[in-house]
Amino acid sequence: MPDEDKKTKQPRSHDPRSHDPRSHDPSSHDPRSQDPRSHDPRSHDPRSHDLGVLTHSDGAGGARMVDVGSKQHSTRYARAVATVRLSAKGVEVLAQKKAEKGNVLATAQLAGIMAAKRTSELIPLCHSLPLSQVALSLELDESKASVTIEARCRTFAQTGVEMEALTAVAVAGLTVYDMLKSVDRAMRITDIRLLEKSGGASGSWNLD
Amino acid sequence: MPDEDKKTKQPRSHDPRSHDPRSHDPSSHDPRSQDPRSHDPRSHDPRSHDLGVLTHSDGAGGARMVDVGSKQHSTRYARAVATVRLSAKGVEVLAQKKAEKGNVLATAQLAGIMAAKRTSELIPLCHSLPLSQVALSLELDESKASVTIEARCRTFAQTGVEMEALTAVAVAGLTVYDMLKSVDRAMRITDIRLLEKSGGASGSWNLD
Amino acid sequence: MPDEDKKTKQPRSHDPRSHDPRSHDPSSHDPRSQDPRSHDPRSHDPRSHDLGVLTHSDGAGGARMVDVGSKQHSTRYARAVATVRLSAKGVEVLAQKKAEKGNVLATAQLAGIMAAKRTSELIPLCHSLPLSQVALSLELDESKASVTIEARCRTFAQTGVEMEALTAVAVAGLTVYDMLKSVDRAMRITDIRLLEKSGGASGSWNLD
Amino acid sequence: MPDEDKKTKQPRSHDPRSHDPRSHDPSSHDPRSQDPRSHDPRSHDPRSHDLGVLTHSDGAGGARMVDVGSKQHSTRYARAVATVRLSAKGVEVLAQKKAEKGNVLATAQLAGIMAAKRTSELIPLCHSLPLSQVALSLELDESKASVTIEARCRTFAQTGVEMEALTAVAVAGLTVYDMLKSVDRAMRITDIRLLEKSGGASGSWNLD
Amino acid sequence: MPDEDKKTKQPRSHDPRSHDPRSHDPSSHDPRSQDPRSHDPRSHDPRSHDLGVLTHSDGAGGARMVDVGSKQHSTRYARAVATVRLSAKGVEVLAQKKAEKGNVLATAQLAGIMAAKRTSELIPLCHSLPLSQVALSLELDESKASVTIEARCRTFAQTGVEMEALTAVAVAGLTVYDMLKSVDRAMRITDIRLLEKSGGASGSWNLD
Amino acid sequence: MPDEDKKTKQPRSHDPRSHDPRSHDPSSHDPRSQDPRSHDPRSHDPRSHDLGVLTHSDGAGGARMVDVGSKQHSTRYARAVATVRLSAKGVEVLAQKKAEKGNVLATAQLAGIMAAKRTSELIPLCHSLPLSQVALSLELDESKASVTIEARCRTFAQTGVEMEALTAVAVAGLTVYDMLKSVDRAMRITDIRLLEKSGGASGSWNLD
Repeated sequence: MPDEDKKTKQPRSHDPRSHDPRSHDPSSHDPRSQDPRSHDPRSHDPRSHDLGVLTHSDGAGGARMVDVGSKQHSTRYARAVATVRLSAKGVEVLAQKKAEKGNVLATAQLAGIMAAKRTSELIPLCHSLPLSQVALSLELDESKASVTIEARCRTFAQTGVEMEALTAVAVAGLTVYDMLKSVDRAMRITDIRLLEKSGGASGSWNLD
Repeated sequence: MPDEDKKTKQPRSHDPRSHDPRSHDPSSHDPRSQDPRSHDPRSHDPRSHDLGVLTHSDGAGGARMVDVGSKQHSTRYARAVATVRLSAKGVEVLAQKKAEKGNVLATAQLAGIMAAKRTSELIPLCHSLPLSQVALSLELDESKASVTIEARCRTFAQTGVEMEALTAVAVAGLTVYDMLKSVDRAMRITDIRLLEKSGGASGSWNLD
Repeated sequence: MPDEDKKTKQPRSHDPRSHDPRSHDPSSHDPRSQDPRSHDPRSHDPRSHDLGVLTHSDGAGGARMVDVGSKQHSTRYARAVATVRLSAKGVEVLAQKKAEKGNVLATAQLAGIMAAKRTSELIPLCHSLPLSQVALSLELDESKASVTIEARCRTFAQTGVEMEALTAVAVAGLTVYDMLKSVDRAMRITDIRLLEKSGGASGSWNLD
Repeated sequence: MPDEDKKTKQPRSHDPRSHDPRSHDPSSHDPRSQDPRSHDPRSHDPRSHDLGVLTHSDGAGGARMVDVGSKQHSTRYARAVATVRLSAKGVEVLAQKKAEKGNVLATAQLAGIMAAKRTSELIPLCHSLPLSQVALSLELDESKASVTIEARCRTFAQTGVEMEALTAVAVAGLTVYDMLKSVDRAMRITDIRLLEKSGGASGSWNLD
Repeated sequence: MPDEDKKTKQPRSHDPRSHDPRSHDPSSHDPRSQDPRSHDPRSHDPRSHDLGVLTHSDGAGGARMVDVGSKQHSTRYARAVATVRLSAKGVEVLAQKKAEKGNVLATAQLAGIMAAKRTSELIPLCHSLPLSQVALSLELDESKASVTIEARCRTFAQTGVEMEALTAVAVAGLTVYDMLKSVDRAMRITDIRLLEKSGGASGSWNLD
Repeated sequence: MPDEDKKTKQPRSHDPRSHDPRSHDPSSHDPRSQDPRSHDPRSHDPRSHDLGVLTHSDGAGGARMVDVGSKQHSTRYARAVATVRLSAKGVEVLAQKKAEKGNVLATAQLAGIMAAKRTSELIPLCHSLPLSQVALSLELDESKASVTIEARCRTFAQTGVEMEALTAVAVAGLTVYDMLKSVDRAMRITDIRLLEKSGGASGSWNLD
């Protein structure tokens, strides 16, 4: 993407600091950025579609919370999953003790829901947004010796909820580990991934 | 205070719900548990060695934060790892753009360290403890198209730091996802697991 | 994505646990729920008017954060109160020491305001929302040996602020206890209740 | 209430400290307070036994976190209770729907445990301490149309855990309200009080 | 809306409590305040333009979170700066060790961004709002032996982001101190100030 | 322990990674570091006295929370100050309105105390520790048109409380700004600095 490179190199070629590869200045020097109705050119939507550039990076080794002020509010949805692989012992305990199974899954379910609400505190460059729904399901699959965790998050906001859904399943998985670790230290939390997202300029996406 | 003891013992001994698998009473029925020098029998170390019972469960479908008051303070250590699997595109960006790679890995490293300190807020039944060390390493392995994350935590406390190490690598992995998701939505965070722990009554443990 | 739907519907239709009251799957089985424009049928407004069902429950023993995405944004208001009952000693200290009374009530007032902003972190299934106002009043009533606490909260959101108002008075009451406990351990925080709410589909409500 | 107005207007106008520019200075001017081995004279144990003075007050209208540095580490225990009064409708739902009852009580139990760990964030002058145990029990008493909540907390620290136990039952009660409010808005959380404490210089105490 | 203004101005001029120096009651007892469409007269915009009155004060020694419910949603922008003054030793370390300089500035940059998101938890009467952008720049100026920190925040909300920008630079400055304190304890964080703000009824403002 | 010291000094001098500017691995690969009784050589006290190296840096561009596990528990004390410079207008409001002055200073005092308790959440590489005392004083100096803020913190821990004292005065200063900004936007928070510290291996230090 030579054009984009030139675009960003020129203003910076007049920036004395632009020769310091460790400059931590993510800000635009475009005077319009003083104007609340304009936005930092470096954080415009086009950037997020230029696959060669990371939206959370200022292109100079610095981090920033990308400006979503120019994005439309819309309903955003994301679904993520994770799998906790258990030992035979862990499966046995959950399969035979209904009360303890209920306790383990209910505790992990709440931990995931509560973590989703705090995603922006955990992920440094995540925007905080008001979740309109967080739903978590946990299922023990004895044949696969695993617990499958699925989270579905929704919001009406200017940015997506992928990180909220991924954080929910990750923390729910960590909680399953915590609840079972006295009988099984070798559990693995695995395959944390986004299954689908929709809403926003980038539209819908599904993992194939 | 015998009166008070009688007062509380009587209803209990007739409490049918004490056999109800849905009772949410994790409390000891041992009158000595009114005495701060004794502890809830259900949470004694032996419990954690009775592999058929989960220490975070009261055996009746309820959750509790296990009493570690009877455990010795000792140096506790844990090491955990996670792997983030990238697409070719994600690898390409990190491999070719040194500044962005540095930014992604440094941001994830800090996110993991900060998350370790907040583990007890995220994992419902985790004890809070003063971490004496949190060290995270992140390495890109181009040949395997993955980023490997390792966390090592230490404390001097009455309980272990497995959850802190696991939370650190999980949140660091989520942050790598957040930093790269504009170029790669299909990343997977996988194989979050404990490699070793030491310290405490249960001694050392290694994943073989 | 018919394939994906079949993939997920089949195991479900054979899943005995889908009839298990301990199943922790709050998700809709309606394939449309994969569609962000639809919502989990279990969380539609009608649910919240079906008094036989708890909106925070999936009807199968699991918890969820109800989907408010289909609700209208409107101004929501709630007013809650609590009373702290003091001993004669506690009243005497507050009545005679003006500076300490000011300190106790001002500290509790701020604690309540700050707690209202964190309600969604404390109450597992509460939505986070931007409070447009939090006002707390605290008054010592010497004749009744009590401190009365009233909170009024407002927002413009898709869900109400009852929990914010109740959390504010509860934490303010706990703070009064903390400030006075060196002279009075037998205080009771009592009659925490909602006095009125307005806004939203369910309209206005007053405690009679 | 004109009486109350008169009552409260007078003392203020005579409060000398209201003209004291240092009225918010909780610090000792004793030069020894520069010495880490000494402590603010205003915060010594004797203070907490001088029933006429609030340990969290500097005696001049200011607040402070009392210095517990001179107190002994010891096992501290506290037990607190709260009662949630339900309408007939609320009782009916919990009594007839076992799955929902389990969900409501389990969610409130976890909320209370998690809140206990965050007490020092909520109560402005509370010290943070490492809880060695938090146990919550919740019981539905249909005959009394109420849910009784009891929390027992333990630590090994320089200060007590009364506030942790009280915070746990208060937040568990708020969570019961949140879970049931769609069927019962008139619930009251009442009689939040300390039943007993032990450990520390002030020794054991029981509510009679 | 002149009508609404008249409505709310009248009760204020007759409000006896506005002269009560002791009341901790920031609330209006005007029955119309039960109506979500009206607002606490004491918290109307006119107040914030009456320079003799603090909007966060109820005029009677009490604090409150001002009601912004009647303000327009608009794009709000703020820019703040801070300077960390270093010793010769601190400058030398940063100037000579590129890797450590990068680490110090990158860590402080992230700390500032994350702190901006938590401003409403730190500043008691601050409203929480969804930041659409947080950008921090940090620059070492060897000639002045200082690090200059600038933050720019944006939101679309009913209230401004001055406190978010000021909190970001303050916490970034504290982090620079923390990172360098092993070589320089005499650093000073200084000149934390707002450079400009725009958006909202009070319009744009620049520091001259 | 001279042996241990020798043991740890050797591998460092041969560590190839210490020359890799891209390594984000703060950990020693010395197999003995798997042993909880040893510690990461890079984090030993000697490091913190080697003025050429930052203890929070791994010497290779990465951050880490330094291992304090080998330090002695001792009473640690720190005192920090900050100054808020006001305009004539701001001074006038505080000087003439006693109730508002009390409200502003009391709110800032509590905000500073509460922030001190959360320092380790704000400063990425700060250890969390149990504060035994936090005392803040705020004084209006009309002649200098400023508010002076002083914080004194104490703990019994393995690391110092400088950051807690500095965070307390910084957040108190930000709160003064927030409370007065409706009458004075040009305030500056300045001269945030450590006045003294004591306790720990590095002993006492005073700003001269």
